[in-house]
This record gives sequence, structure tokens and C-alpha cells, in this order.
Amino acid sequence: MSSILQLQEVLETAIKNLKFPENPKQLYDPITYIINLGGKRVRPLLVLMATELFGKDANHSINAAMAIEVFHNFTLVHDDIMDNAPLRRGKATVHEKWSTNTAILSGDVMMVEANKNLAKVNPVFLKDVLDTFNATAQGVCEGQQLDMEFEERNDVSIDEYIDMIRLKTAVLLGGALKLGAIIGEASEKDADLIYQFGENIGIAFQLQDDILDVYADPEKFGKQVGGDIIANKKTFLLLKALELAEGKNLELLNSLIKLKEFAVNEKVEAVTQVYDALNIRNIAKETMNAYLNKALNLMKQINVSDEAKANILDLTSQLMARQY
Amino acid sequence: MSSILQLQEVLETAIKNLKFPENPKQLYDPITYIINLGGKRVRPLLVLMATELFGKDANHSINAAMAIEVFHNFTLVHDDIMDNAPLRRGKATVHEKWSTNTAILSGDVMMVEANKNLAKVNPVFLKDVLDTFNATAQGVCEGQQLDMEFEERNDVSIDEYIDMIRLKTAVLLGGALKLGAIIGEASEKDADLIYQFGENIGIAFQLQDDILDVYADPEKFGKQVGGDIIANKKTFLLLKALELAEGKNLELLNSLIKLKEFAVNEKVEAVTQVYDALNIRNIAKETMNAYLNKALNLMKQINVSDEAKANILDLTSQLMARQY
Repeated sequence: MSSILQLQEVLETAIKNLKFPENPKQLYDPITYIINLGGKRVRPLLVLMATELFGKDANHSINAAMAIEVFHNFTLVHDDIMDNAPLRRGKATVHEKWSTNTAILSGDVMMVEANKNLAKVNPVFLKDVLDTFNATAQGVCEGQQLDMEFEERNDVSIDEYIDMIRLKTAVLLGGALKLGAIIGEASEKDADLIYQFGENIGIAFQLQDDILDVYADPEKFGKQVGGDIIANKKTFLLLKALELAEGKNLELLNSLIKLKEFAVNEKVEAVTQVYDALNIRNIAKETMNAYLNKALNLMKQINVSDEAKANILDLTSQLMARQY
Repeated sequence: MSSILQLQEVLETAIKNLKFPENPKQLYDPITYIINLGGKRVRPLLVLMATELFGKDANHSINAAMAIEVFHNFTLVHDDIMDNAPLRRGKATVHEKWSTNTAILSGDVMMVEANKNLAKVNPVFLKDVLDTFNATAQGVCEGQQLDMEFEERNDVSIDEYIDMIRLKTAVLLGGALKLGAIIGEASEKDADLIYQFGENIGIAFQLQDDILDVYADPEKFGKQVGGDIIANKKTFLLLKALELAEGKNLELLNSLIKLKEFAVNEKVEAVTQVYDALNIRNIAKETMNAYLNKALNLMKQINVSDEAKANILDLTSQLMARQY
């Protein structure tokens, strides 16, 4: 089995070797740009790790890993248009740097490039790989749609929120792992277990993001602490607070959400105080841990040695240990 | 072999049976809407016909035909955003009826739905089918990119224009035919010939569109004659006129293009007079016929009976006989 670092090197080489046509330049330059903005490459890493989990060479699933990475970057380009986001990883988003039309069309051709990489997979696995990839891609689109709809709604329940983040972010982790498992010749049962593992850690990761947005160490966080509060983003924390708050706290929270003009720090502090009064941080952590534990239980059921599981569990721990 | 009408019925039933999830409604309603705006279904029809051309049952390629039709509708939804088009087949475009974000995301999920249909193809053909489909989809994106770039350029050559329409519209006809041929178990050589046939008739069709836009019978055309002239669209006719015009005609054409305010009919009439003086209509017809004849020669080389070729040639004649 390779070390995580070795797999990351394999990935960086493969990403560097992704070749796109030179022309039309305006169509292909944005692809190289967005892919080279970096990121942790967690999703393609999970593809490779899942193949090794079942005792096969990670190189077998490198094309599927590239498909997942290119697809993920495609969703970033289109989501950034829809979310009107000026920055991605501290750099101009594609629609800002080029234009909205370029971002739409380069995104579209990235989806094609993802599928081209997928088609390179050993034909023996192709049908299963396509079905898994397409189901994943569809889930991600549905998640983005729900996320946009939730912005306009004031009655989003916690269950709906969990289902939205499951679709928007967790199915892609599950899908990445399942692709790797299929190519690793896992049994159908084990492929399904690793998919479920991925979905559950995905939800745990997103809940962690929600918590960190409010409670991260500002020195280490790299972005504005309380960004979600400033934007009234319907995170687990806000939805749970709205569910639990009564009387004065509920009044205060509602008035804070409705403020049109405010001093950023004061709003963040005031909302955080309501959260603290309602014990929201701990409730969110408990929910996060419940998903994490569910994931770990699923992993236990997978029919391979503990040694084979070490990499995926190490990566999971590393990602869950973030304090910023 | 089925009649064209029979194949069209098979298609309409299959289109009616396309099932999309019910939720999120905002994501899937636009798909049903755009697909049910109608259209001649030429592309999926070509898929089925190409399968029959090689003696196999058209039902074998119905999923590939659906993939092509859904993909085509996806390009319409995204192109309409990019072209800022308010109407499509006389009805509101998706981004007008819903929103740009909905049109982006529903388009994205249509691409996934196209791929889901494609994955249902007999696994024996899957790898070839995917490679053909992905190359086609990539060409279509490149064509749209070039089309947008040409709007900003004043030095587009006829060769560049032909290459743009080849990518934007003709490769999809070629790709549709090739998919049908692969599933019809055509030899590699015949599959390539039918692809080339499709590309060449596709270019001929687009040149015909360019001609009809200026010279169609206004009573039958169903849209404004001279729409391309009003919009200064760089069609074959305008590019050829700019290439051939000299002296007074060139001056006149350039001044007509630069007009900011004009009576629509007067501009159309004046530009048409320049075209007439330069014999542009006939030159365009000759070019169109050259592509049509090239296509027919390619068809001759395909190693099946004339009887088997009758449907595709009939459809081609019907489409080329349009006077409006």
C-alpha cells in the first residue's frame, strides 16, 4: 500500500499531465486556471485510496480520479457563477477573470473532459463506473439547486438541511470512494458500504465547516470568522438556534437576521452569544460526531484488514482534526 | 426497415417516456419544458436510421438517440443564456421563464441525463459510443465558443466560418449517425463514412439556413426574413460579400453594417441588393451543393444496399428541399 504522500504525488503528476486542446484558447485556458488553483485533492485521493483498500494498484483508478477532480472543478466554476462569488481560493473566479459566458461554456466542456477521463477506465468496469459517476453528478446538481432554494426560504428544517449538504457535498465523497472500490474489484456490498462511509464523513465534514465558520481560531482560519453569520447563511448552527430559541433569544436572533445595516463584528458577536446561550456549538458537535461514528461503524463492516483501512481512516482523522 | 414516420413515432414515445425525478421541481421542470417545445427530432432520428442502415433494429439505439436529443436540448438551454435569447420555438427560453441560475443548473443536469441514457447502451458498444459522444460534445462546445468569438471579430475568413458551423452544428449530425452505426455494428470504415456524410450535410444545412434567412418566402418562413442582416450576423453570405465587394459596394456594405439606427426593412433591402449585385445567393448555393455532393459521394462508398440507404437520403432531400 502506498503512503498518503505517495498517492498525492501520483495525483499531482496526473493533474499536471491532463492535456486540453490549445484552441479555442478562451475555452480551455479557464480549465487549466481553475484546476491549478490547487486545493487538497481530497476527492481524487479517495478514489485511489478506495482502490488500494481492496488490494488493487492505485494506478488502475487514476483516470477515474481525474474524472472526479475535473468534475469537482466544473461544479466550482458553475457554482461560483450562481453564487456570484468573486473569489475562489483567494484568486478571481473564472466568470470574474473571463466572463459569465466563458465560465458557462468552459464549465460545460469540463464536464465533457471529466467524461472523457472516465471513458478511459478498463471497459470491464465501465458500466458500473458510469452509473456511479452519473448518480453522483446528478446528486451534486440537486444539492446545488436545494442550496439556492434554501436562500429564499424561511422554513428550512434541519432534516432538509442535512439532505441538502448530503447531496451538495457528501455524495461526491461517497461516489469517489465507490468508483475506486469498483475498480478495486470490491464486492457490491463493500462498494456500497464505502459509499455510505463517504456520505457520512461528508456530512460530518460539512457540519465541521459550519462550526469552524463561527468558532475557528481567527489567526489560523484564513478567512473571516463568522462569514456565514454575516451572510445569514442557513447553516446547521443557525437552523438549530432558530429551532431551539424562545422568548428573548428568538426575538434577538430574528432581529439580528433582519438587520440591513450593521457593524460586522457586532453582528457576529451577538449571534454567537445567542448560539452560546443555546449550547449550539455542542449540539452541532454531537451531531457531527454521530455522523462520524456512523461512518466508522460502516468502515468496520468492510471485509478487508485493518491495515488496508489505515490510509482512509488516517485521512479522515486529519480532516476531522482541523481546528481552523 | 421502418418508414421515417414509424421511426418518428418510436421517438415521440421514447421522448414521452423520458422520466426525470420530481424534485427539486425547479431543477427538473425546465427539462420537461424544453424537450416538449418540440422540434423536428432530426438528430435522434439519424441515430435510429444509422442503426437500420446497417441492418439492425432501431430499438437497439433508442437510448443513444435519447442521449443525443437530451444533449442537444442542453446546448439550446445554455446557448440561449449566452446569446441572451428571449425566445426558443416561439416560447420563452428557460432562463427567461425561470432564471439564469436555473438555466445553468438544469442544463448541467441535462448533460448528466444524456450520459445516463448513454450508459444504458449495450456494454459491448459502450466504450466506442462514449468516445464518439464525448468527441461530439466537445466539438459542439468549441463551435459555440468560436461563434461567440466571431461576434467580436472583424476578420473572420470563410474557412474559419465553415469550421465554426462544422463544430457548432455539423459534428452533432455526424456524431448522431456514427452512434447509430456503432450500435448497428458497422465496420469502422463505414462508421467513419457515415460520420463524414453527417458533417457534410450538416454544413450544407447551415448554408441553406444562411441563404433562407435572406431569400426565403416571407409568407412561409415563420420568422423575420433578413434577421441575420438586421443583427449583422457573420453568415456565409455576409462574409462572402465582404470578401468580394469592391469600391462603391464595399463602401455601402460597410456603412450599412455600421448603422446604429435604421428602418429594418430598408437595411434588409439595401444589404440584399449588394448581395444580388455580387451574385452571393448563387455562390452560396454552389458552396452548399458542393458539401451536399461531397456527402452523397461519401454515402455511395458505404458498403450496404441502395435500399438500406433510402431513408437517410429521403430525409436529406426533404431537409434540403425547404424553401422557407
